[in-house]
This record gives sequence, C-alpha cells and structure tokens, in this order.
Amino acid sequence: MAKLKVGLIGGGGPGNFFGHVHKRAIAFDNSRELVAGALRSDPEQALAAAGEYEVEGFSDYESMLEAATNGKLDLDYVTIVTPNHAHYAPAKAFLEAGIPVLCEKPITMTVEEANHLQSIVDTKGVPFVLAHTYTGHPMMMLAKEMVRQGKIGEVRKVEAWYNQGWLATPLEKEGLQQAEWRTDPTRTGISNCGGDIGTHAFIAATWVSGHAVARVSARLNSFVDGRELDDDFNVIGELDNGGTALITATQIAIGYKNDNGFRIYGSRGSLEWHQERAENLLVRTGEVDETYWIGANYSFFPETVGSYLRVPSGHHEDFFAALANLHCTMERMIRRSRGEEAPEPFDHPGVAEGVAGMRFVAAAVSSSAAKGAWTDL
Amino acid sequence: MAKLKVGLIGGGGPGNFFGHVHKRAIAFDNSRELVAGALRSDPEQALAAAGEYEVEGFSDYESMLEAATNGKLDLDYVTIVTPNHAHYAPAKAFLEAGIPVLCEKPITMTVEEANHLQSIVDTKGVPFVLAHTYTGHPMMMLAKEMVRQGKIGEVRKVEAWYNQGWLATPLEKEGLQQAEWRTDPTRTGISNCGGDIGTHAFIAATWVSGHAVARVSARLNSFVDGRELDDDFNVIGELDNGGTALITATQIAIGYKNDNGFRIYGSRGSLEWHQERAENLLVRTGEVDETYWIGANYSFFPETVGSYLRVPSGHHEDFFAALANLHCTMERMIRRSRGEEAPEPFDHPGVAEGVAGMRFVAAAVSSSAAKGAWTDL
Amino acid sequence: MAKLKVGLIGGGGPGNFFGHVHKRAIAFDNSRELVAGALRSDPEQALAAAGEYEVEGFSDYESMLEAATNGKLDLDYVTIVTPNHAHYAPAKAFLEAGIPVLCEKPITMTVEEANHLQSIVDTKGVPFVLAHTYTGHPMMMLAKEMVRQGKIGEVRKVEAWYNQGWLATPLEKEGLQQAEWRTDPTRTGISNCGGDIGTHAFIAATWVSGHAVARVSARLNSFVDGRELDDDFNVIGELDNGGTALITATQIAIGYKNDNGFRIYGSRGSLEWHQERAENLLVRTGEVDETYWIGANYSFFPETVGSYLRVPSGHHEDFFAALANLHCTMERMIRRSRGEEAPEPFDHPGVAEGVAGMRFVAAAVSSSAAKGAWTDL
Amino acid sequence: MAKLKVGLIGGGGPGNFFGHVHKRAIAFDNSRELVAGALRSDPEQALAAAGEYEVEGFSDYESMLEAATNGKLDLDYVTIVTPNHAHYAPAKAFLEAGIPVLCEKPITMTVEEANHLQSIVDTKGVPFVLAHTYTGHPMMMLAKEMVRQGKIGEVRKVEAWYNQGWLATPLEKEGLQQAEWRTDPTRTGISNCGGDIGTHAFIAATWVSGHAVARVSARLNSFVDGRELDDDFNVIGELDNGGTALITATQIAIGYKNDNGFRIYGSRGSLEWHQERAENLLVRTGEVDETYWIGANYSFFPETVGSYLRVPSGHHEDFFAALANLHCTMERMIRRSRGEEAPEPFDHPGVAEGVAGMRFVAAAVSSSAAKGAWTDL
Repeated sequence: MAKLKVGLIGGGGPGNFFGHVHKRAIAFDNSRELVAGALRSDPEQALAAAGEYEVEGFSDYESMLEAATNGKLDLDYVTIVTPNHAHYAPAKAFLEAGIPVLCEKPITMTVEEANHLQSIVDTKGVPFVLAHTYTGHPMMMLAKEMVRQGKIGEVRKVEAWYNQGWLATPLEKEGLQQAEWRTDPTRTGISNCGGDIGTHAFIAATWVSGHAVARVSARLNSFVDGRELDDDFNVIGELDNGGTALITATQIAIGYKNDNGFRIYGSRGSLEWHQERAENLLVRTGEVDETYWIGANYSFFPETVGSYLRVPSGHHEDFFAALANLHCTMERMIRRSRGEEAPEPFDHPGVAEGVAGMRFVAAAVSSSAAKGAWTDL
Repeated sequence: MAKLKVGLIGGGGPGNFFGHVHKRAIAFDNSRELVAGALRSDPEQALAAAGEYEVEGFSDYESMLEAATNGKLDLDYVTIVTPNHAHYAPAKAFLEAGIPVLCEKPITMTVEEANHLQSIVDTKGVPFVLAHTYTGHPMMMLAKEMVRQGKIGEVRKVEAWYNQGWLATPLEKEGLQQAEWRTDPTRTGISNCGGDIGTHAFIAATWVSGHAVARVSARLNSFVDGRELDDDFNVIGELDNGGTALITATQIAIGYKNDNGFRIYGSRGSLEWHQERAENLLVRTGEVDETYWIGANYSFFPETVGSYLRVPSGHHEDFFAALANLHCTMERMIRRSRGEEAPEPFDHPGVAEGVAGMRFVAAAVSSSAAKGAWTDL
Repeated sequence: MAKLKVGLIGGGGPGNFFGHVHKRAIAFDNSRELVAGALRSDPEQALAAAGEYEVEGFSDYESMLEAATNGKLDLDYVTIVTPNHAHYAPAKAFLEAGIPVLCEKPITMTVEEANHLQSIVDTKGVPFVLAHTYTGHPMMMLAKEMVRQGKIGEVRKVEAWYNQGWLATPLEKEGLQQAEWRTDPTRTGISNCGGDIGTHAFIAATWVSGHAVARVSARLNSFVDGRELDDDFNVIGELDNGGTALITATQIAIGYKNDNGFRIYGSRGSLEWHQERAENLLVRTGEVDETYWIGANYSFFPETVGSYLRVPSGHHEDFFAALANLHCTMERMIRRSRGEEAPEPFDHPGVAEGVAGMRFVAAAVSSSAAKGAWTDL
Repeated sequence: MAKLKVGLIGGGGPGNFFGHVHKRAIAFDNSRELVAGALRSDPEQALAAAGEYEVEGFSDYESMLEAATNGKLDLDYVTIVTPNHAHYAPAKAFLEAGIPVLCEKPITMTVEEANHLQSIVDTKGVPFVLAHTYTGHPMMMLAKEMVRQGKIGEVRKVEAWYNQGWLATPLEKEGLQQAEWRTDPTRTGISNCGGDIGTHAFIAATWVSGHAVARVSARLNSFVDGRELDDDFNVIGELDNGGTALITATQIAIGYKNDNGFRIYGSRGSLEWHQERAENLLVRTGEVDETYWIGANYSFFPETVGSYLRVPSGHHEDFFAALANLHCTMERMIRRSRGEEAPEPFDHPGVAEGVAGMRFVAAAVSSSAAKGAWTDL
C-alpha cells in the first residue's frame, strides 16, 4: 500500500519543536511520509527550512495548495503547526479544496472561525483531526471506551486538570520567546493558560466522559505582575446531563511539569489517569483498586484501541507514539474513504471538539470578567 | 508529673467509633487519662457505658460539670464527641466554667453558636482545640511551618480536596445509621458533605497556608436521588491576599477512601500532601523534586514539630498518633498555663478556625443557592 | 471482662524506645494493662524506672517471678524487651513457671537456647509470641491467608528484603549507643545485620509463604572499616518444597529507612508488600493489577484478620497498631485457654519461628565463612 | 549533512518485532535511513521482506557485504537483529570489512565468539554498539554519570533485577514461537532467563556502576515442568573493588511486565531506577529523598546526556527514544571518525560489555551446576 503523502504548514526554523515532533509522528509507522512544506511565514526562510527537512519547499501555504490542486503535488493531507492565529486561514483553504487537515490545537483564534471550519467539514465531509496529543494515548482511549461501554455507569462528576510551573516568574520579560507570544493577546487571543492547557483539561473532561459542558462559572488569575492574560484558570462547569465538571489549569505551580489528568466519577465506578504516568489507568468499581497497564498483549483492549498498540506490556508508548496515533487515525479515515483496507479509526477529537473548546474558553473568560456568573457555552 | 484527668462527653454505646479512638488518644502518651464520662444522651445508657469504659459515670454533661465545679471530680479538660447538634451546649457550659475543651468538628451547628463560643474563649482565655485529626499529623504540621518560614514564598493558590465514595448509593434508605444522620438536615445542619469533609479541606487550605478565605463561589450537588443535603461540594474561594483557593469534597467518588490532601503554590515553590500517604511531604522549589519523610531522627523538623514525634523514620505515625497529638497540644497548653514544664504547643486549630469553618460552609451553601454568586464569609 | 495484667522485663531508662512502645501496645485496646516491671539490669535503676512507668517495681525479673508464683502479684503474661543476650534467662524462667511470654526478637543469642525454649513451650503448652512487629500488620496477615487459601497457587519463589542506611558510616565510633551494641559481638552475637533485620526478612519469606528454608548459601559483608560484624547480608535459600528464597538485608543503603518487604511468586499469581506502604497489598493473578487496602469495612478480610482491624479504610493502622495486634494474639490465646470468650488468635510467629530464625542466621554466617557453601539450617 | 545509510540483517517476516522497532529507531532523528536489508534466512523470503520494508533487498548478509565492499551499496553501518545464534557470523564479517555494527544482545552464543569479535574491534577500531535498549534511556545514562562524578562516593553494593511473568506456564508447548526458541538450547544457548534478561540486569549492575563482576555464586531454576533451560536466575557476585552485586532475573513472576531496575549503594549516597518508571531517577544522599525527572530543559543533565534529549520535562522519552539513542551514539562515532561535526557520543555498551555479559552468564551456569561454587568470570 502506498504511503500517504503529507504536507506541513509551519514548523520550520531554528528551535522549532512541534514541526519536528509531527515529522517524526508522520514517519512513525512507515505508512506516511512528509513530502512538502510551507514551513515559515517568511518565504525565503520557508524554502530554506524545506531544504533542512528534505521536502519539497513552498514559500507559503497558498502555493502548496495550488500545486496540490493543479496536480503538481501529490498530497493526501496537511498538518498545521503554525502559531495559533495562523491556523484558520490554511485550514479553511485546504478543507475547502477537499484536502484533509490535521491541525494543532487550539483550532482557531475565535469561536466564529471555528464555527466556519465546522460548517465546511460538515458540508464536505473532509477528515479533520485536532491534535490534542494525549488523546492518542491508548490509556486515554481505553478510558473513553470504558465510559462508553458503561463500566462506571452514568457519569456524575468529572475533574480534569493541567498544572505547570514554567510561567511562575515573568519569563516574558527575560527574553523567552515561547513566554512572549503565549502571554501576548495579539498572538494568543483572549486566554493564555486556558487556551493553551485548559483546553487539554477540557478535552479530557468532555471527550473521555462523552458529555458536553453546558455552562461555566470561572475565575481566571494573572499571578505574575504585569501579565495581561491569565496564568491560572479555574472553572466549575455543568455537564449536559446535569453533572458537574471541575476544569482547572495553572502555569504557576512551581516544579510541576505536565501534571495533566482526569478523574471521572460514575454511578457504578471511577476512572483516574495521569499524563505523567500515562501507562496506567486506575479503575475503581468495588473494594479492590484496579490498575490497567498499556501493552499490545492485553485482551482487555477493545480492537478499536488495541489496533493502535505497537509494543508489549512493560514498555511504554508515550508522547511520540500518542501523536503518531492521531496521524494513524487520519490515515485510517483517508484510506477507508478510498476503499482501501484499514482498521477502524478511533473517534479522536475533530472539528466539533475544536469548536466546543473555543466556546469553553470564551465562556470562561466572560464568566470570570462577570465575577463568575454562570455563562452558557 | 501527674496525669491530666479527662472527661468524655458522648462516645458511648455499641458501635461507637470516635469515643474509642479518643480514649486511645488520651491514653496514648501515658500523661493523660480518661476518668469520667457522660457518654450517651439517655441517662441510664450513659451510666452503663461508663461502666464499660471503666470511668466514673454521669447521666449527663451537666452533672459532670457540677461535680467538677463542686470539687467532687478532678477534671483537667473535657473531650466532646457527641453528634454535631450536641457540641454547642456542653462546650459552652464547660468553657464558661473555665474548663478547657477539645471538641470534635464541626464546632457547632450554626455560625451564631460558633461565634458565641469564640467570645467565651476570647474573654476567659480557656484552651480550646478543634479536632481536625490530621492537623495533628507531623507532616501537615511541617507543611504549615514551611509556609510560615517562607520556604515557598508568597502563597498564590491553594487546592484542597477530600474525596470519598461511601455515599455513592442511597445507604440512608438501607438502614445504615451513619448515612441516616449525615443526610438528615435536622441532625446535620445545612450541609452534609461540606460540613463533614469539606471542612477538613477548608482547614488544609487555610490553616496550613496561613491565609483566610474571604469569599466563595460554590456549586453543591445531591447526586443520589431523594437526598436533601449535598453529597458533593465544590468551591472556588478568594484568599485574604487575593490568591485563589479550590476547595472540593465529594462522597460519590466510588472506590476512594479518604482521598484528602492539599497543594499550595507559592511564588518560590510548592507543597503537596496526601492523607493516604501522610508520611510524605512533597516539596518542589527547583529542578529536583523533594520528598520529606516523617521520622523523629530528622533534623529538618523544627522543634515545634519534632517534639511531637515518637518513632524513627521508616515507621509511620498515622491516624491514632495524629489524634493523640491534638490531645498533646491541649496538655501542653494546660500545663504551661499552670507553670508546669511542657514543650511549646503547636498552634493547632482552635475556636477561630471553628468559626471560620462554619462561616465557610454557610457561605458556600448560600452561594450555591444563589447560582454561584460570590459570597463573603 | 477483666483486663489482662502484664509485666515488663527490660525497657526502662532514659531514651529507651521499645519499653514505651510495648507499654502503648499493651494499653492499646483497653483490655490489657501494664502492672509490673523489672525494667533495668541495675536494681536501683529498675525500681526508679518503675516509678516513672507507674507500675509495681521489681529489682530484677527473678523477684517479679517469685511474686507472681507466690500469689503476691497477679500476672497474666510478661513482655521481654531486654537486650538480645538477656532474652533467654527470663523467658526460660517464666515459661517454666507456666507464665506466657511475649518476647522481642531475636528470641535468644544461640540456637541451643532457642531449642531449649521450644522444648519448654512444647512440653508445657504455654503461649509464646515472638515480636516481629509487622507480622501484626493486617496486610501482612492477609498475605499469609491468601497464600494459605491458594490464591497464588504453589509457591515457587520468595524475595524478602530489609534495607536501611543508618550504619553506612562508623557511628559506633562516634558514641551512638545503639550502634555500639549492635556491632559488638559480645552483646549482639554472631551477626549484626542478619540478626537484627535479616530475621525480619526471613520471617516475611517463611511465615507468610508457609514454607521453611531448608538450606542457604550466603555472602555477608562488613563495608565499614573496622566493623567486626556484618552490616550487609545476602542469602540464597532453598525452600522445603524445592523453591528458592532470596533474603537480603543491609544497613549501608544510604537514605533508606525501613525498606522491608516481600514478593511471593506462585504458580497462579504473585503477592507484593512494602512495609513503608504497609496499607497496600499488591496482587497479580492476571492482566489487571490489584491493590488491596487496609480497612475494617472490607469484606475481603477473612474473619481471622478482620477481627484485628479497628478503623475504616482510608485511615492506616501502622506500627503502633501492628505491635498491639501481637499483644491481642497473646490475649486471645490466654483468654481462650481459660474458657473466656475471645476471637480466634492469628497464628503469629512463636517459638518455632524463633528457633528457625536462629538457625537461619547461624547457617548464613557459617555459609559465608565457607565461601557460600550450601549449609543446612 | 547527509543521512547515514543503514543495512539491516534479520528482522523481516510476519510478526517480527525487533526489525520494526530498529527501523523506527534508525529513522527517528531524520539523520539516518534504512537503505538495505538481508531480512530473513530464506533468500526468497528475504527479498520479499525487503520489498515490504521498501529497501534494497539482499538474499543474505554475504551478498549485502559484497555489494557494500564493491562500491555497489553505500552503507555506513549495519544493524543485526537475527536470532541469537546468527549474530556472530555477520558481525564478524562486517567488522572485518571495517563496517560498524550495532548488534542486538546477547552479542553471540559463546564466550569464544564474543572474544573473537572483541579482538577484531580492538585491532581495527571499528565502532560497535550492543543494543541493551534502556542503556539509551537518559535517566540510566544520568545514573552512570552521577556514579562517575562521585555523587554517591565509592560503590559498595549493587542490586539489579529483571522480573517478568510471561513464562510462568509452559507456553512453549502451546505453540508460542517466542517461547519455543527461547527455551530451546540449540537456538538459545546455555541459558534462557539469564541470557535473555539476566544480561540486562548485569549491564545495569556493571555499566552503570562502573565496576566489573569478578566472580559469581549462582542458583538457576527451571520452575516449569519439562523445561530444559533456566526460567529463574539468581546470582550473588563480587565486584572488582570487593563490593557485592545481587543480580536476579525471573520469567515466572506472574503479572510482572518488565520489572527491570537497579539500586546502587555507595559510601555517600544511593541511586535507584525502575524501567517501568524510567522517567525518574531516585537519589538519596541525606535526609531528603530526591527525584530527578527527564526533560531537555533541566540543567542537571551534563552535556553528554542532555545532548540526547528531545522534549521538555513532563513528556517521557521511553522505549522508542532509548533505542534511537543507541543509533545516535553509533552515528556520532561514525561522523566524528570522519571529521564531521557531531556531539560527543556517550559510552554506551559495546563489545567489551558484550564479552563480559557472555562470561557472566557462562560463569553463572557453571556455578549453579557446581552447587553455587564461586566461579570467576
């Protein structure tokens, strides 16, 4: 079976992180390959970066799209890793041209933009995957399956969190580029902490539990002097079934790395997962606590999850493999849409989850400004 | 040095739990002894229970108080372990007579009652200790000392939680006595989950951090059909220094036992503690995570904490020892007030913390009823 | 039911540790009380110490025994906490008089002494309990029950260990009393590390697994310059069913407290327990790992174990409670021997286990001296 | 800089595991690429497999070598993943031709073969890397650096272990291919458990500690009926500095996955690492336990380790990345030997460690046969 051919929008330049990790994720399974790139906003730099990546270079995404639609470039899907404000335009353009898109989160800068992408996807039926990396982790997928299959009964309450410490001091004034744009409203939008990592907690709360958040009451903080956007994000939400969600994120928790995770309390049991111990899913349904481990050899993985596993138990498939799994899902969707043989793709977050995430952050920002008034999504 | 003589109010009867644990805590160090009891509300049963406890029996607390004030009973302090609604009357009576009181939490049924106790304590200077058991655990005490000494800088955010699962089903309809009175407003007051375990989380958030909660926004739930009082309790609070507190408790987290703990994020570091792993305090102030263990041999314990330790590292001093430590503090206060030699008592929760806890629960109940409106304590 | 009356041999004097912990363990359940003591080797100091303990004082164990046999002292059993070399004489004397003995480990200084105690116990049928403290921990008891009930099939291999770091430097030359006598052959016998903590690992390996060690190959080390006795102890043993035991202990593992624990691998599953996380027993019999927690409310405890539990899950019963449980067992044996009502005593280590432990250490010392030659117990 | 071109010997065929993981590891950093394969012993199947791998196919390693030496194939190094008995011949051939070799462990079937490879490597100076996967994990590398830099003082004792449960039942009689050849002396050599995973424990004990094992006393078991080779492997060793090593491995520990790890006790501190929690290195040098986390952002990584890191803290680099790091080391050695710019290669296990491992297993088998007699390596 021919490898799928992938184009990359953004991701070039010295010190870029996400370009390289997606490149690795694309190549991970030997069934996809990166072939083209519009890797930087500056056209010359974009072409230079393509040389480093050893792919066909384009000065901008428009010219890559033109080549793809003119038959000059064979392209199965594109991956968008530009800064947040530059997701929308290429996503829109490629989707309108019927070319599938795997896009870094957050999907767009505004709810309106996200809505518009959704309307295109809904109309055209083009595959779209939103890259919340750890939704590709098999234990997070197993958690979603367990909830879906009723293992813990009806969902009553969800807690999801993401604690980091890297912005506990004013790094944006000390020349750290990553800190500069994250805390700059013009490049980041209405929320720093909420948009960057609160959305990961939101996805855990909603995508895994299978329940939407209907409305929220929020308190956002900027603990570091002179910082305009939030560096701390606290939300109490109401689920669509009347349940409660606690969704919190912070960047001022000194010493915490990626303390991301969730707990889901149902009428018959509970689930718990921690990203920093991603290989374990903790299940409680009675007197004895259960720990499920990752491993291709375990029979408790339903085929929908097990088909993503690569190594036997005792070895972990973490960050790199999780991201690769999202590309797997894209690959499966594309191949099946063409009648090629491929296992069933898992329902990883797509455009609907992207829209919901944007609405969630917008509602939280509004609620916080309105002293915690309950605000619909 | 003569043993202190202690009276017990409540705690008798078959299956009673807290009477026995306080009896053990009183005797733990061989420097205090239980000598008298008014152990049940029914006078005859009270006297019978005293026989079982092998102490001088009284039919009610009034007659014990009378004996103590008439010189017929030698009593250094009393311990109150009656149901919540029966804390106030004996506490008031003994305090007014100048007899120190160690009282189970919650301090009273209403804020007004608590205020009144505080006015007596403030006026008379009688020792009063509020029995939040794990505040007597040396690692929780060490955490408080570390914050006080500036180890983590200025406190920015506090998370405190208490998750249990025992009320996930309607046990109150299945004849479980403990479930019946906990969920009955006439015996428990305005809040079940908040009052019972939310207050423990509140104490962790405020007593350890050294910061009061000024106002709250809350969402309380009753997940189990037909239950009048809350079984789930979620509060976002504002600290007196403008920081944020997340204080949550639930009784519907199936499989969770006493998942109680806190995290305190400061401008220079973070602290983390879990009651179910009480022997460790996790400290993060830089690149390397630190784990402090309990142990009488460790030099990092300031004398104020170290003087409470009984065994070397590698053995734990848990539930029983923590409760005994609260009696130690009472003993130290009493002895020093008499000019006897005793180490400095730790500032364990007292009447002020009891009042604050009552206000906190009342404010949370009000806020939840008012759709999360921010409510002052 | 009248409290059992207990005498204490040894345990007095400033800074003594084990006297106080046994005193607390005796009183723990309000059904036993310390009434008499021969607390130090110096007669005058012995009487003075009794004053501090508030018990009837004796200048030596002989006079206590005389009082007990003459009807001048009411004594149900004695607890021996003298230095190792002074266990044998009082144990022998009281057992011969038919008075039950709870004795600190190691049972004696030599195999011959231990054999002699066993012959007395066997002949007279006097209750004897050997105080390996954590054999009184309910999770270690549950492990023994699970093996006995076949949960993990036939035992194939046992690993038991005890790692400490306190003797990693020559503390015995720096005036630490505990280090001085532990490393002194005249007071400690043929082995320091093996006798002190290797025996705990041995008990875990044999008492829990239900299998004796038949013969051993050992390597003992003295890592600290000038130390005569072992501070590191490594044994490969053969079980009586042909299985293998790895029994190791060390006192030079810097930073380790009481890292004591075991793993038992059977033909159908595995058990794992760690003293520093004593509240959990880890069970593996299939794809999902199981964690059992301590808790009086759990139905998985057989009555033989559950009857020792005092508090519900989420609170731990650790060092103090475990030691108290050994006194409980003694109490149950005595009461039942008199026809009083008492729950069934657990088969905690007794004289047979004491003899086996002495033989084990002696065989290990011999094997190590003979370059690891396999040596029968 | 041109990508290094890599040939693969073995690793083809349906269900092959290690071929694919090395392929991924080779491509991981975009600086190496798999170009040629002699992938199966059957020539036709070998060519077919090459088609699947999309590389130039050879019917056997000899023809690949011929092409490489005749200038028909551009090859920078080869990776050998054939069954154990087929490591030696191709390794010898390529090394003699001066072509670097990255070889799966165990290096050969016999000590003699290993010695011969070492003599070639020593004479010709050709790079050779032995693929103990987790020696490529940055935390294991950090441990080695810490010992080297004296962080824990002089090494006294090392414990290393590898516990698995997959061979607890006679899977070799139930048609599991992997179990068949592992337990078959003709294909596996003199030891199953020792050779397969005992060698991993041996590498941890020696490579990390920086100390060779001089002699051993061993007990090997075959717990499963009818199994010829060991499934359980227990060794007490003497280090070259007189210290002690405990090296154990088992395949009958039901429920254990890859419970591989080590502890190193030195005169000034201790290190501890667990493969199943590979992201943490536990360091104890005083009263407070320290946990080091993986993360490209941490300053405690010396450049020799830090230069291998790809992602910031909070994301793990596990199995895949660790194996890729061994290929990195090979790449660095090759590039620097040519004067190309490349960071300093870490001293990962090579031919000397391979020889030592073979001697270790041989000595252990001999010792066990001689009832544990101490046997020199």
